[in-house]
Amino acid sequence: MTFNWSKEPFILGLIYSLAIFGGSYILDFHIYIPWQPISIIGIAVAFYLGFKNNSAYDRTWEARKIWGGIVNNSRSFGAAALAFVSGADSDQVIKELIYRHVAWLTALRHQLRLSRPWEHAENRLNGKYAPTVCEDYTEKLDLELKPFLTEKEILALDGKTNTATQIMKNQAIRLQALRDKGYFEDFRHMEFHQLIVSFYADQGKAERIKNFPFPRQYASTAVWLTIVFCGFVPMGLLDIAKSANGWVYWVSPVISALIIWVFFLMEKIGDYSENPFEGTYNDVPITSIAKGIEIDLREMIDDTNIPSPVQDENGFLL
Amino acid sequence: MTFNWSKEPFILGLIYSLAIFGGSYILDFHIYIPWQPISIIGIAVAFYLGFKNNSAYDRTWEARKIWGGIVNNSRSFGAAALAFVSGADSDQVIKELIYRHVAWLTALRHQLRLSRPWEHAENRLNGKYAPTVCEDYTEKLDLELKPFLTEKEILALDGKTNTATQIMKNQAIRLQALRDKGYFEDFRHMEFHQLIVSFYADQGKAERIKNFPFPRQYASTAVWLTIVFCGFVPMGLLDIAKSANGWVYWVSPVISALIIWVFFLMEKIGDYSENPFEGTYNDVPITSIAKGIEIDLREMIDDTNIPSPVQDENGFLL
Amino acid sequence: MTFNWSKEPFILGLIYSLAIFGGSYILDFHIYIPWQPISIIGIAVAFYLGFKNNSAYDRTWEARKIWGGIVNNSRSFGAAALAFVSGADSDQVIKELIYRHVAWLTALRHQLRLSRPWEHAENRLNGKYAPTVCEDYTEKLDLELKPFLTEKEILALDGKTNTATQIMKNQAIRLQALRDKGYFEDFRHMEFHQLIVSFYADQGKAERIKNFPFPRQYASTAVWLTIVFCGFVPMGLLDIAKSANGWVYWVSPVISALIIWVFFLMEKIGDYSENPFEGTYNDVPITSIAKGIEIDLREMIDDTNIPSPVQDENGFLL
Amino acid sequence: MTFNWSKEPFILGLIYSLAIFGGSYILDFHIYIPWQPISIIGIAVAFYLGFKNNSAYDRTWEARKIWGGIVNNSRSFGAAALAFVSGADSDQVIKELIYRHVAWLTALRHQLRLSRPWEHAENRLNGKYAPTVCEDYTEKLDLELKPFLTEKEILALDGKTNTATQIMKNQAIRLQALRDKGYFEDFRHMEFHQLIVSFYADQGKAERIKNFPFPRQYASTAVWLTIVFCGFVPMGLLDIAKSANGWVYWVSPVISALIIWVFFLMEKIGDYSENPFEGTYNDVPITSIAKGIEIDLREMIDDTNIPSPVQDENGFLL
Amino acid sequence: MTFNWSKEPFILGLIYSLAIFGGSYILDFHIYIPWQPISIIGIAVAFYLGFKNNSAYDRTWEARKIWGGIVNNSRSFGAAALAFVSGADSDQVIKELIYRHVAWLTALRHQLRLSRPWEHAENRLNGKYAPTVCEDYTEKLDLELKPFLTEKEILALDGKTNTATQIMKNQAIRLQALRDKGYFEDFRHMEFHQLIVSFYADQGKAERIKNFPFPRQYASTAVWLTIVFCGFVPMGLLDIAKSANGWVYWVSPVISALIIWVFFLMEKIGDYSENPFEGTYNDVPITSIAKGIEIDLREMIDDTNIPSPVQDENGFLL
Repeated sequence: MTFNWSKEPFILGLIYSLAIFGGSYILDFHIYIPWQPISIIGIAVAFYLGFKNNSAYDRTWEARKIWGGIVNNSRSFGAAALAFVSGADSDQVIKELIYRHVAWLTALRHQLRLSRPWEHAENRLNGKYAPTVCEDYTEKLDLELKPFLTEKEILALDGKTNTATQIMKNQAIRLQALRDKGYFEDFRHMEFHQLIVSFYADQGKAERIKNFPFPRQYASTAVWLTIVFCGFVPMGLLDIAKSANGWVYWVSPVISALIIWVFFLMEKIGDYSENPFEGTYNDVPITSIAKGIEIDLREMIDDTNIPSPVQDENGFLL
Repeated sequence: MTFNWSKEPFILGLIYSLAIFGGSYILDFHIYIPWQPISIIGIAVAFYLGFKNNSAYDRTWEARKIWGGIVNNSRSFGAAALAFVSGADSDQVIKELIYRHVAWLTALRHQLRLSRPWEHAENRLNGKYAPTVCEDYTEKLDLELKPFLTEKEILALDGKTNTATQIMKNQAIRLQALRDKGYFEDFRHMEFHQLIVSFYADQGKAERIKNFPFPRQYASTAVWLTIVFCGFVPMGLLDIAKSANGWVYWVSPVISALIIWVFFLMEKIGDYSENPFEGTYNDVPITSIAKGIEIDLREMIDDTNIPSPVQDENGFLL
Repeated sequence: MTFNWSKEPFILGLIYSLAIFGGSYILDFHIYIPWQPISIIGIAVAFYLGFKNNSAYDRTWEARKIWGGIVNNSRSFGAAALAFVSGADSDQVIKELIYRHVAWLTALRHQLRLSRPWEHAENRLNGKYAPTVCEDYTEKLDLELKPFLTEKEILALDGKTNTATQIMKNQAIRLQALRDKGYFEDFRHMEFHQLIVSFYADQGKAERIKNFPFPRQYASTAVWLTIVFCGFVPMGLLDIAKSANGWVYWVSPVISALIIWVFFLMEKIGDYSENPFEGTYNDVPITSIAKGIEIDLREMIDDTNIPSPVQDENGFLL
Repeated sequence: MTFNWSKEPFILGLIYSLAIFGGSYILDFHIYIPWQPISIIGIAVAFYLGFKNNSAYDRTWEARKIWGGIVNNSRSFGAAALAFVSGADSDQVIKELIYRHVAWLTALRHQLRLSRPWEHAENRLNGKYAPTVCEDYTEKLDLELKPFLTEKEILALDGKTNTATQIMKNQAIRLQALRDKGYFEDFRHMEFHQLIVSFYADQGKAERIKNFPFPRQYASTAVWLTIVFCGFVPMGLLDIAKSANGWVYWVSPVISALIIWVFFLMEKIGDYSENPFEGTYNDVPITSIAKGIEIDLREMIDDTNIPSPVQDENGFLL
Repeated sequence: MTFNWSKEPFILGLIYSLAIFGGSYILDFHIYIPWQPISIIGIAVAFYLGFKNNSAYDRTWEARKIWGGIVNNSRSFGAAALAFVSGADSDQVIKELIYRHVAWLTALRHQLRLSRPWEHAENRLNGKYAPTVCEDYTEKLDLELKPFLTEKEILALDGKTNTATQIMKNQAIRLQALRDKGYFEDFRHMEFHQLIVSFYADQGKAERIKNFPFPRQYASTAVWLTIVFCGFVPMGLLDIAKSANGWVYWVSPVISALIIWVFFLMEKIGDYSENPFEGTYNDVPITSIAKGIEIDLREMIDDTNIPSPVQDENGFLL
């Protein structure tokens, strides 16, 4: 699978290497360059790619941690709702709170899947589940929010820049109203409020990763360094192979292609985990996580029509 | 021990290297390739493995930290229960709270030991203590929960997706009920609730590590790079040894095998600490930690029939 | 773009390399030095630059996190204001609190954009939006604060060393006054105060990054090491190329220039993310983030005349 | 000093190298192997050791941070006790609380100094201050606890698995009792309780580092890689030196020994900071830190017979 | 500047290198050693220095973060004092609280500047502002505390081991007394207490960095490795240059000296940021930060005789 996904640089590298070696053979003029400086560039590039991969991986892992935090706080919210709210029709109130929370999750998830200029849109998985931009986006979101919010509340959200932020604000106002009606008192209200603060923190962290890409110059430097190095590789190998016997001469383009493949593989791998919410392979599976939270919360209130967990397709989870 | 565990790549590497050297000797045709490019690949691969080992170790260490957090919060919970709960039959109530907490620990521990597709199931230690999947899993878990929960509570847990989450929710509801009956008041209730929030956080963090593996592409890239490099090593050594005297020629396959061993050792070592809950050597010993918590908490209430600590078998702790 | 931005070292490197090679050719005296020691310097320098880039990137990323924290806490503040404040003309009070918060944001943003001796002032984008120092600074800031604070409050801020700190202090005093008037009670007041503490923390963290540059000696060491290495590169290549045929001799200055470019590129890239608030490309876009917060908060209170989000110019966001 | 401590590998390396060079000279048969592959192993090993040293240092530094946290929280506890407790014989109550805290510190310190199978017991400093295991351990601990706890409380601790945990639990119960008697009220009681939670967290973190060693396979891999590399070094040098003049031939074993020393030094240095509580040089000086806390707290209550700070012996602090 | 500061190793390296090359020339006996093993040592040393620089930089950065935390919490304390304290002569009480806080800052700052055996005392800037040890230290400190504390309070501090700790304890006791007199009530008192806890945490963290140096063995290993490597460098260059023409022979000592300089530069740079409170260049400017806090807090209460910010001298801030 890994090879499949990265075969392009190998093939291009092979063609390029064969061109250099074949050309040199036919023209009887070796367009070689000495190997030693290439070796230094190679080490420097390997370092740089190591740094880039590290940072890219950290972004993915941080994104996963943030959604892990959403899971934890959501469960605490569910347990708190069940334990703290008491009074007439408390079941209805608890359900309302949990449903609004699921609505927030849904809006947040959709906002994070909107595409950004620096993402790999072409590699998205046929757009499946991944919302496309603006036009039909609001409509689709409203449809998904419908089971969880009243029509009035959905209407009031229209035109707001950040839907999730406003849903959570509604939750905060509603909690104060419930406090005023005596469903719980100050101590418990403050616990709820602490959770609101946590949810805003989690949302903001996810948006930060979405909106602040790995600095573009760091990223493009990695590409340029890799290209410069790989461009030199076959010429450098020609220096070594030009005086060798036939076997080594003709196996060298393959070696050259493999080196090119190794470096582009290391370059590409970071590239794909840089943006953990873009909807491609290796992403944080936010749809699946959000569904999991919904299931846990609705099982807490013994709700009906609970969806089943999201299944992976060929090891791929959205 | 380390050698025993990693001898496979050494033996295979030796066979492969001998084949290259022997074949070249018999056919009198040296299938060598120049050493310099191999050296660059080697450095790049060493870098990449360093990055991978670092990340893998971080996962294990984070997993251990999470369970350390469970230890700390559990002790705080025990001390809080003893100090805060007062009233008629308070001893019974304290015991119930601590027992439900042990039940939560038990469920969490079992859930974390369920196998995942990307884990090294074949290396599990004869399945000892490590629960096998679905069929008899629920039954076995129910059996382990029995001493700590009422039958009714166990029954209500059946069919829930995440047992541990629901047990902790029951704890939260029970704490509110105790508050309403006057076993403690608001200030102390809120401290208990803070601990509930912490337990949900610890549980969610452990599940995150369990469910979000080290990105598959990072992992498979490490394997591919190591294979490419190791495939070249004997051919490269042949370049150096082909013109040398007999001693060097025939000691070279051994050196080649040792290099292959060194790189596969570095590759494998990360592999095994990637998934710290899979039930193999080098894992976080969650059974032993959970038992340790149980002992501390039950010693706090001077309980009887306290189990003894889990002993290691040949330096191996579950 | 990356090349455009870093072409200077390439051109200078090419001229220098051509001078060495051309001079040697004309004088028929090769001013070469052996390649091996250069190779060691190269590796050491690559290491050092890796360390520097890592630290520089961490500074940018931390700066972004801090502003992410401001976003999150501001939203919590907005939601808290809406939910907690009640009583006569509560709408007016909420608006006042939110406006004062926007004023704090504005002051903080301006303070962070003031230039420091170690920043790249020459690369600022024509000073657009980036406030210039002292003379007209206070005046311009007062103008921007005018819509959000009363004239009296602005006047009282004059002459204070740190405007943002004093605005936030005013917020704290005002919240106590509102508490005394019964707009909310102790529990809610304490939540507000917690947010004040958070805002001071966020402000102080941003100021720390602004005022404590990447240690100057670390930075200048990177430059010196790069210069020493690059000074040697063409002489070292001459060692390799001096006995080669014509093609290699004359292509070597280009390779030399490319190596010089690679190392200066790696050196420069860290340089530019060291100071994430200096107003150049790759900065944390604090103007745009602050505007975003203003929009969210003012949409919460259904305010009018809400500004539209800051647009990027050629992929550049302030 | 550093040399003294690591001279063993240098001497053994010298003997080994001399054997290889001398043997080759006498037998007139060079048991050399080519240098190039050794160079690759060397770089890979240097990487691996770098990773190991980093992790080992992090463990020591984390351990120091944890004890730093104990210092900070202890001072807060002392200040809180002095400020919050009021009523008849409040001085006596404050003293009791602080004394019990010192008892906890003492028990924790002793528990952390118990030896573990993977520690360097042979390098302990003559067992001075470092408690030996089980037999006389409890007795000695009881003696040290005597000035700070009542006999009854000490007796009740006997037979408990984790003494420190139970002392802190007693503190928690005592604080509730004091609350019930009106020495302070709920708000202040909750602050005390927060500190109890912190102490449990600090204790648990220290125990985590004590009980979860740097993964054994990572550690033994480092040793094996170093041995393999160092075993090759003199043979590789022989390849280079065999055709050189006499000076180089006979200085080579010394160079070889120095390389071996360099690598074992890097290997050993991590080894010794892996287990920061084992009682050897470079450890976290927990005896001295605990004494320092005792001094600060007892100076707060103007106690008498305050011990003087622990002095270092030859730059070594326990 | 960087060169000036590190010219010593360059000059010594040059003399040493010239001695080797000159001696070999005069005696006509080349005391060279082969370059290849030196190259491996060089890479290993570069790694090790990279690790050391990273750790040393982290220490400086952490120290700066801690003082950043003091800034933030101090501002929160100031704002809280102004907002929370009310009643007769509340202005006087607020001033007293803020003055005592400045006294704590002063004591802490002085304690951190006391010299430790492992610091670079010889490089201190003429002892300017940097307090010398014990004898006149207490006297000078008392003088600096005088404007901020009553004589009685200063007297009671004499003889205490840790002055700052005791000042903060007095603050805690005073706050309780103010609570008892009704200047604020429980909620606000608890907020104040939280800040006391934070200040103790900040103080303890700074002391940790002051008192627990970068492990001596790590540090001395870096020096030894650098010396071993640099001792070999000219001999290794002689191997390369001995058969070259005159130009290379006589330029080699300069190259050798530059390599030695590069490595000692990398070694030294970490050395100087290891101890961020020792009073040399690159330190955390605690005097200037503390003055900045004093200014902000006293501007909050519109105090008179506010000092002006500390100016840097030649880019150097204390």
